[in-house]
Amino acid sequence: MAIHIKNNEVAVFAIGGLGEIGKNMYGVQFQDEIIVIDAGIKFPEDDLLGIDYVISDYQYLVNNRQKIKALVITHGHEDHIGGIPFLLQQLPEIPIYAGPLALALIKSKLEEHNQLRTTELHELNEDSELRFRKLSVTFFRTTHSIPDTLGIAVHTPQGIIVQTGDYKFDLTPVGDQPAPNLQRMAQLGADGVLLLMSDSTNAEIPTFTKSERFVGNSIRHIFEKIEGRIIFATFASNISRIAQASETAMANGRKIAVFGRSMEAAIANGRELGYLHIPDDVLIDVNTLNHLPANKVMILCTGSQGEPMAALSRIAAGTHRQIHIQPDDTVVFSSNPIPGNTTSVNHTINLLEEAGAHVIHGKVNNIHTSGHGGQEEQKLMLRLMKPKYFMPIHGEYRMLKIHTDLAELCGVPKDRSFIMENGDMLALTKDSARIAGHFAADDVYVDGSGVGDIGNVVLKDRRMLSEEGLVVVVATIDYQHGNILAGPDILSRGFVYMRESGELIGQAQRRVFRAIRTTFKGDNTPTEGMVRDAITDTLQDFLFTKTERHPMILPMLVNAQ
Amino acid sequence: MAIHIKNNEVAVFAIGGLGEIGKNMYGVQFQDEIIVIDAGIKFPEDDLLGIDYVISDYQYLVNNRQKIKALVITHGHEDHIGGIPFLLQQLPEIPIYAGPLALALIKSKLEEHNQLRTTELHELNEDSELRFRKLSVTFFRTTHSIPDTLGIAVHTPQGIIVQTGDYKFDLTPVGDQPAPNLQRMAQLGADGVLLLMSDSTNAEIPTFTKSERFVGNSIRHIFEKIEGRIIFATFASNISRIAQASETAMANGRKIAVFGRSMEAAIANGRELGYLHIPDDVLIDVNTLNHLPANKVMILCTGSQGEPMAALSRIAAGTHRQIHIQPDDTVVFSSNPIPGNTTSVNHTINLLEEAGAHVIHGKVNNIHTSGHGGQEEQKLMLRLMKPKYFMPIHGEYRMLKIHTDLAELCGVPKDRSFIMENGDMLALTKDSARIAGHFAADDVYVDGSGVGDIGNVVLKDRRMLSEEGLVVVVATIDYQHGNILAGPDILSRGFVYMRESGELIGQAQRRVFRAIRTTFKGDNTPTEGMVRDAITDTLQDFLFTKTERHPMILPMLVNAQ
Repeated sequence: MAIHIKNNEVAVFAIGGLGEIGKNMYGVQFQDEIIVIDAGIKFPEDDLLGIDYVISDYQYLVNNRQKIKALVITHGHEDHIGGIPFLLQQLPEIPIYAGPLALALIKSKLEEHNQLRTTELHELNEDSELRFRKLSVTFFRTTHSIPDTLGIAVHTPQGIIVQTGDYKFDLTPVGDQPAPNLQRMAQLGADGVLLLMSDSTNAEIPTFTKSERFVGNSIRHIFEKIEGRIIFATFASNISRIAQASETAMANGRKIAVFGRSMEAAIANGRELGYLHIPDDVLIDVNTLNHLPANKVMILCTGSQGEPMAALSRIAAGTHRQIHIQPDDTVVFSSNPIPGNTTSVNHTINLLEEAGAHVIHGKVNNIHTSGHGGQEEQKLMLRLMKPKYFMPIHGEYRMLKIHTDLAELCGVPKDRSFIMENGDMLALTKDSARIAGHFAADDVYVDGSGVGDIGNVVLKDRRMLSEEGLVVVVATIDYQHGNILAGPDILSRGFVYMRESGELIGQAQRRVFRAIRTTFKGDNTPTEGMVRDAITDTLQDFLFTKTERHPMILPMLVNAQ
Repeated sequence: MAIHIKNNEVAVFAIGGLGEIGKNMYGVQFQDEIIVIDAGIKFPEDDLLGIDYVISDYQYLVNNRQKIKALVITHGHEDHIGGIPFLLQQLPEIPIYAGPLALALIKSKLEEHNQLRTTELHELNEDSELRFRKLSVTFFRTTHSIPDTLGIAVHTPQGIIVQTGDYKFDLTPVGDQPAPNLQRMAQLGADGVLLLMSDSTNAEIPTFTKSERFVGNSIRHIFEKIEGRIIFATFASNISRIAQASETAMANGRKIAVFGRSMEAAIANGRELGYLHIPDDVLIDVNTLNHLPANKVMILCTGSQGEPMAALSRIAAGTHRQIHIQPDDTVVFSSNPIPGNTTSVNHTINLLEEAGAHVIHGKVNNIHTSGHGGQEEQKLMLRLMKPKYFMPIHGEYRMLKIHTDLAELCGVPKDRSFIMENGDMLALTKDSARIAGHFAADDVYVDGSGVGDIGNVVLKDRRMLSEEGLVVVVATIDYQHGNILAGPDILSRGFVYMRESGELIGQAQRRVFRAIRTTFKGDNTPTEGMVRDAITDTLQDFLFTKTERHPMILPMLVNAQ
């Protein structure tokens, strides 16, 4: 679909973040000026085997590179900043604007990718104002599960476009964190918001999300009753939670040992920027840990999502070099499993309990609260902003859908709400809104350091391997004489146990042998491809008949010439 | 305690509403101008026997009558307007300002008391501004369980004093009701609020109160499943609830019969002012009711609090002239029992179920939501208003206390929060606040039409009567001759059954006879008081020995001269 935007129209689009949770990236364009908001990654779902993460297709931005005035960042979570190194690979000239914590996290990311010195970075605060020729950008403080979260208002000649970023209305945030700036939001609403783009993550939750302070109370009650070691697992990005656990541990006379690379980095960042007040002498290494009484220590670690390589998972599995579960240990999961992770979290909990630890988790203990507002907060945002048009963002389709229902209840009729897809272009004037076209904005897979070199074929292979296993056939063939010099040898992985399947493999070998020989019975010498196909076809049929499985068949032919 | 307010100080006080739920009445005074906010009644607790309601002692206002510029009303509930007729008896000259619905309710009240023609009434809306020489008053729309609820801002030379009225943040109100005006509240906060006086009713509830719309969904689900008659009981003042029940009934093809005087008045008022859209042909009388099929009618009535004389209680007891419970009836209690009423509500439910009705009530059915905001909403108000000083109102002591805890979490330190009592004077300048004295603001009891003629002695008597009963002794005495011409006859009520106590009464008679005679054995003729005391003392001792009770003893002596 071609894009037709009139000269007086403001265009608003998502490069990522619609129909999904993750890789948030939005754009506001007026004539020759584009403001880009966030550049996140998405963590792959289970069917994307071996993919490290998913980013957006940046081609639209590459095509319009001379128009891009700024990449403005709402907050420092990976699904909002994780894509920056990959974006900069294609568009190194984009200036980036972010609050202090997000900027610190971006800097360590750029350092890792050797991009720090070549990138233009600017620190923002709530009172910053970015002025370009036709567009300007202002900010309003919100609250989320990471400090320094900002909502963004892009002021255009047609009206104000507000992008909330991720938010909840935490009216009693912990530590020195300020409350959401309701006055500024209401002022935008009074000035007149043309389009509200609002976080839809918890659109299915009918309530007002509990304050982080509420979790602090639970942590205090729980910690007071624990007499052995405390192993506290949460997201490394949840600085407020880390602060609350650390302060409670210190109040109970416990020292803190930190495990997991991202948790160590979070503690360092948080202390440097003043979000975490943990004195040097409270942080201990593993030696001190092992010499202190159990009721004088807390272990702070990653792995609350059951990630296989995270510290807690290795502790649970007994494969951590330094930490082993002791009978009086209490493990606190201060997080809810992200839906796809329920199985691995349960697995980790089982292992921990089998090893003798007491495990505290789940909603009953009030040991976690969401960083995203529920319906009451989404309604509150709508009522504060009183937008003329509405575009739910940051959510899967059903969440976006419910969010438009809420918008309708808050005075935005359905024909002014736009449920869009990544790449859709919404064109607005002060009294009109329409879908004006579409650009390609498909997922791009990142595997290790390779970007975009994994396609659907590779993923299909990985899926087949994971589900059906692999059978490798090795044979050395003298094509000239039609002779099989060695093999065929058959090796399988993830298919059937070799030991129990000696006969099956023996039969398979004979069939493959015959199949190869048959290819030489015609008039012409077969090509390697023909032999390969013969092996594959024969083995596929045979193995399916015997096992009803479709393993990947990989003939490895050595040409003896 | 004397009151010492300096000439530059603004004084803020409660005449009622602090340390209690009910009889809300607050004042803001600067030099020679007083704005009075609300004039409510309190319904008596169980130990105030026979008291119809409780009002405030208006003496402070009477003493300062020439300073009173206005009585401004937040909304039309009895605990905010019920005291007006009694206030006007003492201060008929006060001009009253109220929103349309409150004004309509006040008018019918004044008509009843023959005060309508002598009272100065003004209709308010959210955009009204009252300007006096030194003070001015503006308004902001809130939401509550009655339409047209306003918060009040009194602008003084020292700063803005905000009184929230009763509120919840219903972001999706039903019908044509507007949402709370967040922009205006935030603007007051941005302008700078000197003192916030905020509703504390639900300070013990940690959540965000559910929207009235949520109850509508429950009503719809419940009504759809009912095949017999529906008897729907709620507060007559809850116009939104009545609207939701009526609309759902109509959507299900049911006609509506209304019972209970206050419900009839509410329907009339609500229709006249446009809050209820019930066509004439939907409202039916008892004859039509009895001729329609059960699944074509809804009975709307008062009595959801188990009030003995209300329609529902009489229906339950089988003493209603027109309505009798039928086996397929479903009674819906769309209210939670006010704490003191739990017993009578349960009693009514039992009677209804014994009569064969199905009863739906309680929280599990989501058939009710509070009109007052929980902690999250109280915090939201605090964050919107950002007051320098805080005074929790409308609540018992523990609610006021918790509310100051919330205020502290929202940036108002404890030394700037004032938990006050009725009659306490808070004196403020733009950078100071102190308790500057106290005036008498005790409860005044209203019994029938008598105001203030019931004191503690009467109440003690009523309590004794209710607990121990009454014994009346009648005797005709010729004092001159020391002769008992008739009696003593003894009659008891609420003490012991006469039939079973013939002998007890006989013995008592003989003792009283002897006691009277004994008073005549001295040198002087006894006074009536002496005879009376002799009877009382003798009978009290005798009856306590026999029954361990202390009935009230009432000698009725006839002087035969």
